[in-house]
Amino acid sequence: MTVLSETIAAIEPLDQAASRAAARRLDSLTKPLGSLGYLEEVVRRCAAIRRDPGARIERAAMLVFVADHGVAEEGVSAYPKEVTPQMLRNIANGGAAISVLCRHYGYDLRVVDTGVAIDTRAQALPAVRYRRVGSGTRNFLRGTAMDSDQAQAAIEAGIQTVNEAIGDGATIVGIGEMGIANSTSAAALLCAIIGADAALIAGRGTGLDEAGLLRKVEVIRAALERHRGCFDDGIQLLAALGGFEIAAMAGVCVGAAARRVPVVVDGFIATAAAAVADRIVPGLAQRMFFSHCSAEGGHRLALEHLRVRPLLDLDLRLGEGTGAAIAISIIRAALAMYHQMATFAAAGVAEKL
Amino acid sequence: MTVLSETIAAIEPLDQAASRAAARRLDSLTKPLGSLGYLEEVVRRCAAIRRDPGARIERAAMLVFVADHGVAEEGVSAYPKEVTPQMLRNIANGGAAISVLCRHYGYDLRVVDTGVAIDTRAQALPAVRYRRVGSGTRNFLRGTAMDSDQAQAAIEAGIQTVNEAIGDGATIVGIGEMGIANSTSAAALLCAIIGADAALIAGRGTGLDEAGLLRKVEVIRAALERHRGCFDDGIQLLAALGGFEIAAMAGVCVGAAARRVPVVVDGFIATAAAAVADRIVPGLAQRMFFSHCSAEGGHRLALEHLRVRPLLDLDLRLGEGTGAAIAISIIRAALAMYHQMATFAAAGVAEKL
Repeated sequence: MTVLSETIAAIEPLDQAASRAAARRLDSLTKPLGSLGYLEEVVRRCAAIRRDPGARIERAAMLVFVADHGVAEEGVSAYPKEVTPQMLRNIANGGAAISVLCRHYGYDLRVVDTGVAIDTRAQALPAVRYRRVGSGTRNFLRGTAMDSDQAQAAIEAGIQTVNEAIGDGATIVGIGEMGIANSTSAAALLCAIIGADAALIAGRGTGLDEAGLLRKVEVIRAALERHRGCFDDGIQLLAALGGFEIAAMAGVCVGAAARRVPVVVDGFIATAAAAVADRIVPGLAQRMFFSHCSAEGGHRLALEHLRVRPLLDLDLRLGEGTGAAIAISIIRAALAMYHQMATFAAAGVAEKL
Repeated sequence: MTVLSETIAAIEPLDQAASRAAARRLDSLTKPLGSLGYLEEVVRRCAAIRRDPGARIERAAMLVFVADHGVAEEGVSAYPKEVTPQMLRNIANGGAAISVLCRHYGYDLRVVDTGVAIDTRAQALPAVRYRRVGSGTRNFLRGTAMDSDQAQAAIEAGIQTVNEAIGDGATIVGIGEMGIANSTSAAALLCAIIGADAALIAGRGTGLDEAGLLRKVEVIRAALERHRGCFDDGIQLLAALGGFEIAAMAGVCVGAAARRVPVVVDGFIATAAAAVADRIVPGLAQRMFFSHCSAEGGHRLALEHLRVRPLLDLDLRLGEGTGAAIAISIIRAALAMYHQMATFAAAGVAEKL
């Protein structure tokens, strides 16, 4: 058995009894029934995923995967490819948005190089974990982005990363990413999964102009045409159109489910990874929280396809896990109320007429 | 001069130069241009309100005003009137949702009795501040809810409360409330301000059934008919249809603006207070952040009327300041990124192609 198949085999069903017990406790707390709105669903779902009506969430880890994409050579990004290793260093050095948020919230930030084109291992970036599956993917307009065994290895890199974080105490994890041109890979994957045209799914990424967006749409259409036939199998799909960091995030989704740990999915690219994971293990999206609906192209369509509701809608499109970091803070606040509010009985407050 | 007119006179214009300086700094940070979406507008607006491109926000205070409403006797709430003093005690004792959130986030929680029907001063609730303007308002179906000088006094209670909080170090304040039947008063005020029918604005509050909602709509229509003619003047409007806690929250909005402190407005009822404040000082809503769009009736219409965008959309309808507490945490996260992220130059990251 592979690490992936063993991990999938370890996933238990969602615990509906724990969810119902959480619902009963929510109804006993000193607030109008149901008045925490979607946050009550978040609490119930935490209980179901954790298989624990206490829905205990202790430490949060933010797992950020970085990789390069061969398709960048098609001019589908507003930023040059050198930015990938530069941002890897910036995240590791504490200057990136996700670095600031993890410090601010007290999260355990883990940055993983899953295949940046330039190998930075000689550069003394002690905060970076290296799980390099290659030196960037190949251009998927010309062939598959990676081999099947690279797709497997990248997924397993995600599983290993989340297992380590959980071993170190994480009970909720966020997934985020950085990689020039990865919104093209994510859009292609989502087109294949949803069965939608690239014009509906692709967006401006980090800031493409109109001509760039049209080029990106054409690149994705051509890639979909080329790789048609491998869309039903999650691994083959990742091999054809994926990125190493996207495959690793999909691996986190599978690995966290096996350990009863909720995953908080960042933006458009992380949502593509979640959608691939949901194709590998049908229904897996129900073990995840979706942090926000970004300004990017078909993000809303992707969320609708997965039948999930985002926590935030702030037109974020930064990536790195920034939306997930904020969403985790909201989930923690919801759980604080769940754990610490007084009941009607204990507080001597009259119930509904 | 009254405290109110002195306070209004002290309000300076928004500092557009500070906003532009904040925009320049945002564009220098290592992220795609504009990629923090609405959070970039939040940062720019903090700079404009604080009149400081640094947009320094140190301590947050949550100001929660509690009062009773004569109109409760019309059967417009799903909960009995005894719940107001019971929840006052629960908030003070740390068991209410807002108590938990303020502890969780480290906010300075200030609970103010502005006119609960039962006087709890003998009950040893040391955490409660007493600024009682009366023992509940009168039923506004039969006359004005309060006298003009009570409306003034309630507004001034809000101004004093926010001035004290700012004196103790608060540089951002949230406003929230509790008071059985206060969503009826809030809906009536918003109908008068927006010029909309009660059926479009009133909602189920803490959980009215269909018959209760119809009764609430009829009560509001009758009250609007009775008090027509006083809708242009904010003070007269509060006197006719208001609540003491709503008037106090309007006072906070005015007082905070005079001290360059942003106000984070909670839900439907706090939004009614913000709309009244915006009627007293036109444009004042631009000094506030609106935390969420609640599930309550015309909240979205009210936000559109004020031309403001909520930070969250989670179907919250708890009140007490809970939505504002979460929204403040998001504003603080946005400012942490603004203050701590590396610039492109400092991090050696390439800019856009």
